[in-house]
Amino acid sequence: MQKNKIKVGIVGGTGYTGVELVRLLSNHPYAALKSITSRGEAGQRVSDLFPSLRGFVDLTFSDPTLTDLGGCDVVFFATPNGIAMQQVRKLLDAGVKVIDLAADFRIKDVSVWEQWYGMPHACPDLVDEAVYGLPEINRAQISSARLVANPGCYPTAVQLGFLPLLQADAVDELSMIADAKSGVSGAGHVAKTQNLFAEASDNFKAYGVMGHRHLPEISQGLTMMRGKTVGLTFVPHLMPLIRGIHATLYARLKIETDVQQLFEQQYQAEPFVDVLPSGSHPETRSVRGSNQCRIAVHRPQGGDVVVVLSVIDNLVKGAAGQAVQNMNLMFGFPESSGLNLAPLLP
Amino acid sequence: MQKNKIKVGIVGGTGYTGVELVRLLSNHPYAALKSITSRGEAGQRVSDLFPSLRGFVDLTFSDPTLTDLGGCDVVFFATPNGIAMQQVRKLLDAGVKVIDLAADFRIKDVSVWEQWYGMPHACPDLVDEAVYGLPEINRAQISSARLVANPGCYPTAVQLGFLPLLQADAVDELSMIADAKSGVSGAGHVAKTQNLFAEASDNFKAYGVMGHRHLPEISQGLTMMRGKTVGLTFVPHLMPLIRGIHATLYARLKIETDVQQLFEQQYQAEPFVDVLPSGSHPETRSVRGSNQCRIAVHRPQGGDVVVVLSVIDNLVKGAAGQAVQNMNLMFGFPESSGLNLAPLLP
Amino acid sequence: MQKNKIKVGIVGGTGYTGVELVRLLSNHPYAALKSITSRGEAGQRVSDLFPSLRGFVDLTFSDPTLTDLGGCDVVFFATPNGIAMQQVRKLLDAGVKVIDLAADFRIKDVSVWEQWYGMPHACPDLVDEAVYGLPEINRAQISSARLVANPGCYPTAVQLGFLPLLQADAVDELSMIADAKSGVSGAGHVAKTQNLFAEASDNFKAYGVMGHRHLPEISQGLTMMRGKTVGLTFVPHLMPLIRGIHATLYARLKIETDVQQLFEQQYQAEPFVDVLPSGSHPETRSVRGSNQCRIAVHRPQGGDVVVVLSVIDNLVKGAAGQAVQNMNLMFGFPESSGLNLAPLLP
Amino acid sequence: MQKNKIKVGIVGGTGYTGVELVRLLSNHPYAALKSITSRGEAGQRVSDLFPSLRGFVDLTFSDPTLTDLGGCDVVFFATPNGIAMQQVRKLLDAGVKVIDLAADFRIKDVSVWEQWYGMPHACPDLVDEAVYGLPEINRAQISSARLVANPGCYPTAVQLGFLPLLQADAVDELSMIADAKSGVSGAGHVAKTQNLFAEASDNFKAYGVMGHRHLPEISQGLTMMRGKTVGLTFVPHLMPLIRGIHATLYARLKIETDVQQLFEQQYQAEPFVDVLPSGSHPETRSVRGSNQCRIAVHRPQGGDVVVVLSVIDNLVKGAAGQAVQNMNLMFGFPESSGLNLAPLLP
Repeated sequence: MQKNKIKVGIVGGTGYTGVELVRLLSNHPYAALKSITSRGEAGQRVSDLFPSLRGFVDLTFSDPTLTDLGGCDVVFFATPNGIAMQQVRKLLDAGVKVIDLAADFRIKDVSVWEQWYGMPHACPDLVDEAVYGLPEINRAQISSARLVANPGCYPTAVQLGFLPLLQADAVDELSMIADAKSGVSGAGHVAKTQNLFAEASDNFKAYGVMGHRHLPEISQGLTMMRGKTVGLTFVPHLMPLIRGIHATLYARLKIETDVQQLFEQQYQAEPFVDVLPSGSHPETRSVRGSNQCRIAVHRPQGGDVVVVLSVIDNLVKGAAGQAVQNMNLMFGFPESSGLNLAPLLP
Repeated sequence: MQKNKIKVGIVGGTGYTGVELVRLLSNHPYAALKSITSRGEAGQRVSDLFPSLRGFVDLTFSDPTLTDLGGCDVVFFATPNGIAMQQVRKLLDAGVKVIDLAADFRIKDVSVWEQWYGMPHACPDLVDEAVYGLPEINRAQISSARLVANPGCYPTAVQLGFLPLLQADAVDELSMIADAKSGVSGAGHVAKTQNLFAEASDNFKAYGVMGHRHLPEISQGLTMMRGKTVGLTFVPHLMPLIRGIHATLYARLKIETDVQQLFEQQYQAEPFVDVLPSGSHPETRSVRGSNQCRIAVHRPQGGDVVVVLSVIDNLVKGAAGQAVQNMNLMFGFPESSGLNLAPLLP
Repeated sequence: MQKNKIKVGIVGGTGYTGVELVRLLSNHPYAALKSITSRGEAGQRVSDLFPSLRGFVDLTFSDPTLTDLGGCDVVFFATPNGIAMQQVRKLLDAGVKVIDLAADFRIKDVSVWEQWYGMPHACPDLVDEAVYGLPEINRAQISSARLVANPGCYPTAVQLGFLPLLQADAVDELSMIADAKSGVSGAGHVAKTQNLFAEASDNFKAYGVMGHRHLPEISQGLTMMRGKTVGLTFVPHLMPLIRGIHATLYARLKIETDVQQLFEQQYQAEPFVDVLPSGSHPETRSVRGSNQCRIAVHRPQGGDVVVVLSVIDNLVKGAAGQAVQNMNLMFGFPESSGLNLAPLLP
Repeated sequence: MQKNKIKVGIVGGTGYTGVELVRLLSNHPYAALKSITSRGEAGQRVSDLFPSLRGFVDLTFSDPTLTDLGGCDVVFFATPNGIAMQQVRKLLDAGVKVIDLAADFRIKDVSVWEQWYGMPHACPDLVDEAVYGLPEINRAQISSARLVANPGCYPTAVQLGFLPLLQADAVDELSMIADAKSGVSGAGHVAKTQNLFAEASDNFKAYGVMGHRHLPEISQGLTMMRGKTVGLTFVPHLMPLIRGIHATLYARLKIETDVQQLFEQQYQAEPFVDVLPSGSHPETRSVRGSNQCRIAVHRPQGGDVVVVLSVIDNLVKGAAGQAVQNMNLMFGFPESSGLNLAPLLP
C-alpha cells in the first residue's frame, strides 16, 4: 500500500540519472517518489520533458529553493558535482538519509578531491562520514549509513573487475591497466557539440588519457582492496552507443591460481554480479536497462596476463540502479527490490 | 504463487518475438513459462543464446517433435509463417488456447492469404474461427477466443492511427496513405546480408513499394472499421534503429471536426493507446520496450489534410506485448498484467 | 596550375556545410580556397577544428570583421540565415560573385520570407536579382548570375522528385504529399540537446508538422514548375543517421502515362540526377559523400497513385556540392569539376 | 590517357574490400579496372550490386572459371583466405603481379599459418617470396616484388603504433598490450547473425580474447621490428560503427625518451601516417574513407607507461587503400596516386 512506502525526493531530476531514477522508482514496491526538483524546468510536468514516463509519474518539477525535502525519508542528488555538498547537512540534520550520485563524497582525501574537481569542499567532515556505496565491498556500512556516496560509472565496472584479483593478492598491483569504453549517455543530458549525434555517431575515440576524474576514485578503491598503493593506467573511450560501459582490464598474475574459480567464489552470493562461464565475452546490451554487472575472465594463450571483461549499464549499475540498491540496503528492504527487470535485448 | 499461474508454452523461441515473450513473461504475475521449443537450438539453454535472460529463465530449448505442449494452458507461436497452421488444431483439440504471432490466421479471405504468402492454407476453417487480436477493436471477441491471430507490427500502428477517423466517417477512405518506417528488428533474428550492421546502419530506404504482405492485412482492418472498401497506399521503410515503428498517416477530411477530440474520445479508456497533446510529435524511443502506442494528430496549416503520427515498439505492441495483452484478455487477467513497464529512455 | 585557379572565400566555415565546402574544394581543379572566416574560431587552424582536413587545407580561420574578401572571385556564405543579406551588396559591388547556402535569397516574395524567418529583409532588390540555384531548372540563369541562392536540402530532394510530373501536368497538383526524412547533420554543428547522440540515436520522430521553413521554398518551386498554385503537405522527420535525405513523394495521376519514361527523359542529360531502373528503392548511403540525386518511381498495384523515392546527401547535393556545381556553371567550368567522387559505401 | 593505364583485375569483387578497391581505382590516374570476378554474382553488373558505383564502373562480374586474368598487369585477390594460394602461381608465371588482400602469404612460418587457418598451404615457396605489404617498413622490397601480402587491418594499426618504440628499443617488448576495436565492416559482407544491425547496434563486446588470427601476424611483425621475440596481449573488440579501427596500445618505457619526438621523426616523410600534436586523441572518423593512419602518443601522469592511440579506416589503410599504395610502389607511380581523398566528416 502506498501509505507504507518511504517518501523519496530527487534533487536535479532533468538529467539522465534523474529520469532513470524515476523509471526505477516507478516500479519499486516500497518507495514512492514525492518530490523532484529542477532549477531550469520548475513548473513543467516530468512527463512533458520525458514523454516515456507518461502514465508512470504524475509529478511536476518543483523549484529547489521553494521545496522542503525535510519530510522525505531519503533524498537522491542527481545534480552536477558541487551541489550536494552545500545541501546535505541540513537534510541529515532533519533526519533525512541522502544518496549523492555525483562525486562530492566519493574521495576520502579532500585535497585530492579539490585538486581534481577544482573547488574547495564545503563539508570535509561529512566526507569522513560518507560511505562509498559499492555494496559488493561495503554492504554492512551502507546498511547503517546516513550518507552514501554513489560510485561513478567507470569506477563501478573497473573495481568489480579487479576486486577478486586484488583481494586474493593474485596480481602485480603496480602495473594494472583499465581500458574502458562508455556510451554517450555517460556525458549527460547537456548540450555539448562533441556529443551531437553527427559528431559521436559512426565514430570512436579515447579522451582524457592524461587524466580523468574517475582515476583517483578508482585508485582509492583498488588501494583499499589491496591494502597498499596500486599503479593503474586508466584510458576512457567514447563509443557510439547510448547505454553501456565495457571495461577491459589487464593485470599480471603473481601466483598460479584458477581465476575463473576466484571470480565465481567472490561473487557467488551477489545479486547483481554475474560471472559468465569460462571463455565468454559479455556484451553491453546483455545488461541494457538492468542493474547487472556481467564479468568474464580470460588468460590468453594460458600466459600470466589475466584479462577481465566487465560490463554494466552506466545509468543503472553505474548510477541510478546502484543508488536504488543502496537505498534498499539503507532501509532494510530486500536488496533487489525494484531492480528485478530483465535487460532489454535486442 | 507459482502453482496458481497458468502454464505457457512458446513454439519457436529463438527469434526476437520469442525472446521478447520470455522477457515479458518473466515479469508476469499470473503466467509461468513452462516450455520453449526450437528446432535449431534444442538442448541449448535459453540464457546461453540470450545472456540478457540469465537469472530470469531457467529453461532449455526443447525439440518441437519431442515436446508435448498439450499440458499448457496457452501456447504462443513465434514461428515463421506457415508453421502454426499445421499444429494449431491438435492443440485446440487438447483444450489449449493459441496465440499466433505469425500471419497464418490474420487474413479472413484465404485466397488472398494464399496469394500473398505463396502457399496453400492448411486449415481454412480455423481462419474463420480465429479472432484478430487487436484489443482496441476486438476486445470482447478476444476474451472468449480459443485462437487469436496476433496483428503484424505495421498493421497495429497504422490501424490504431486511422481507427478514430474511419469510425467517425471523417475522411475520404479512398485516398489514404500510410508512410511507415520500421526498425531493423522487424526483419527478425535471421542472417540476411541486407540487414547486416554495415548495410543497414547510417542508411535509410523504402522497400516493398510495389506490394508488402502487411498491405492486405491493413486493408482488411480498415475496411472492417469503415464498413466499405478503402483505398490505401502503403510504403514501408527500413530505418537504422533496433526497435520502433513510426507510421505517418495522411487522409483528407470530408467533414469539419475536432480531430484532437475525436482521438481522445476514442482512446480515453484504453490502457495502451496514449493520445498526446495537440502539436506533439511522438518519438519511437518514448515507447521503447513498452506496450504503449502513442499518437498525435495534426492538421497542417489548418487545411483538410489530417496527419496522424503513430509510434509503437514493433516487438512489444507490434508483437510480443500485444500477444501478452491478448493472453490477459483470454484468461480474464487484468489487461495490463506484466505490461506495466516504463519505456527505456534514453 | 594554381595560378590559374579562381580565388574562393568562405564566410562562416565552422559548420557542416563549411567543412564540406572545404573538402570538395580541396579536390577542385579550377578553384583554390583563399580565405575562410569565423567569428568564434578566428585564429584557429581549420585542420585543428576538423582533423580530417589535416594535409588538405593549410588555412586559419580569419576574423570576418578584419577580412577583405573583395579580392576573391567568388564567396560562399555558409552562415546562419540573415547574415548574407547584410554583406552581399558590398561584395557584388566589388565584382565578387556570391553563392548563399542559407535561405536569405531563396524566396521571391519578401513578405513570405519575413514571416517565416522572423526578421525584416535587408535587401529586397537583391532577392529579385538572385537566381535560385537548382541547375536542373535554372541552368542558363545560373550561368550568368552574380548572386545565387543555393536551395535547401529538403527542397532539392522534393523538387527534383516532383519536377517531371509537374512539367508534364501529369498529377493533381492540389493534393501532393512529401514525407521527408533527414539525417541529423541537417540540424547543423550547433549544440542542441535534442540533437545529442543519446537523444537522436535509436530514435525516429517527425517534427515541424504544423509548419517548416522549407515549405514555402518548396511550394514556390513547385508552383513555378506547374505554372499555377500547388497544394502540398510536407512532413519532415529526423532519422538516426548522419548524412542523407530520403523524400517519399505521393501524387495522384490525372492522365495515363509511362512515369518511368517520363523521369528518364527529364533527366537523361543531367550529370547529377540518376533515375534508377523500374522497381528500385534508392538508399541514402548510395549517395553518401556525393553530389548525386537518385530517384525511383513506382505505381503501387498499378493504381493512380505515383510514389517517387528521391535521395540525396543533404550536405552535398543538398548544400555544398550543389553550391560547387553552381560555381562551376557561373565560371564556365565543366559542371562536374571537383564533384566526380564515388559515394562512400559501406 | 586510358591507353597508357595499367590493366587491373580483381578476383572476388563482391565483398567490402572488393567494392572499396573499385571505388579507389575509379579515381586512379594510372590504373584501369579491366576485370572483376565473382562466383556468386557472375553476369550481374557491378553497379547493380553496389548502386553507389553507378556511373563509376561499367563492368559485369565475370565467372572466375571462365576469366583469363593473364592479360592484366596486376591482380588483386579480395577473396576469403585460402583462395589466392591456389591461383597465384599461374598468374605470376604469366608475368602478372599479385596483391593478396587475404592472409595466405602474410605469415612466414607456414606451420604457424596452417595451425591458425586450419588448412595445408598450397605453395610454401611463394610464402618465402611474398613481401609483407606495409610500406612504412618494407617500401623498397615492395617496389620490386611480384607478390605482395597485404597486411590485415588490426596488424596495420597495431604495428604502425608500436614501430617507433620497438625500433628505438624504448619499451619492454615482453609486456605489450594492444586493446583494439574494429567497426563491423571488418567482419565482411557475409550474412552472419552476430553482425546483424539488431545484434551489433547499440552494443559493444570483446571477442576472440583467447586467440585471434591477427595475433601471429602482429607478433611476427613486432618481432621483426625489435629483432627478438616479443610478448603481446591482443584483445579485439567489435564496436557499433561501419568503418574504423582504434588501437589503444600500452607499453612500459625502459629508457627516458621524448616519445612525441620519436614518433614525429619516424613518420616525418610518410605520406599516410600522421602524428598528431601532443595531447591529441585521434577519432576514427578523422580517417573515414581515407588511407591515413593518425597516431597520438601519451604518457599518463608522466609515468613510464606509454599509451599510443592509432586509428585507420579498416577498409582503406587496413585493406584496399594500402593495396593501392602497394600497387603504386610496385609500378613506380607516385605513392599517393588515387589516394589523395579527404576523409568524409561528418
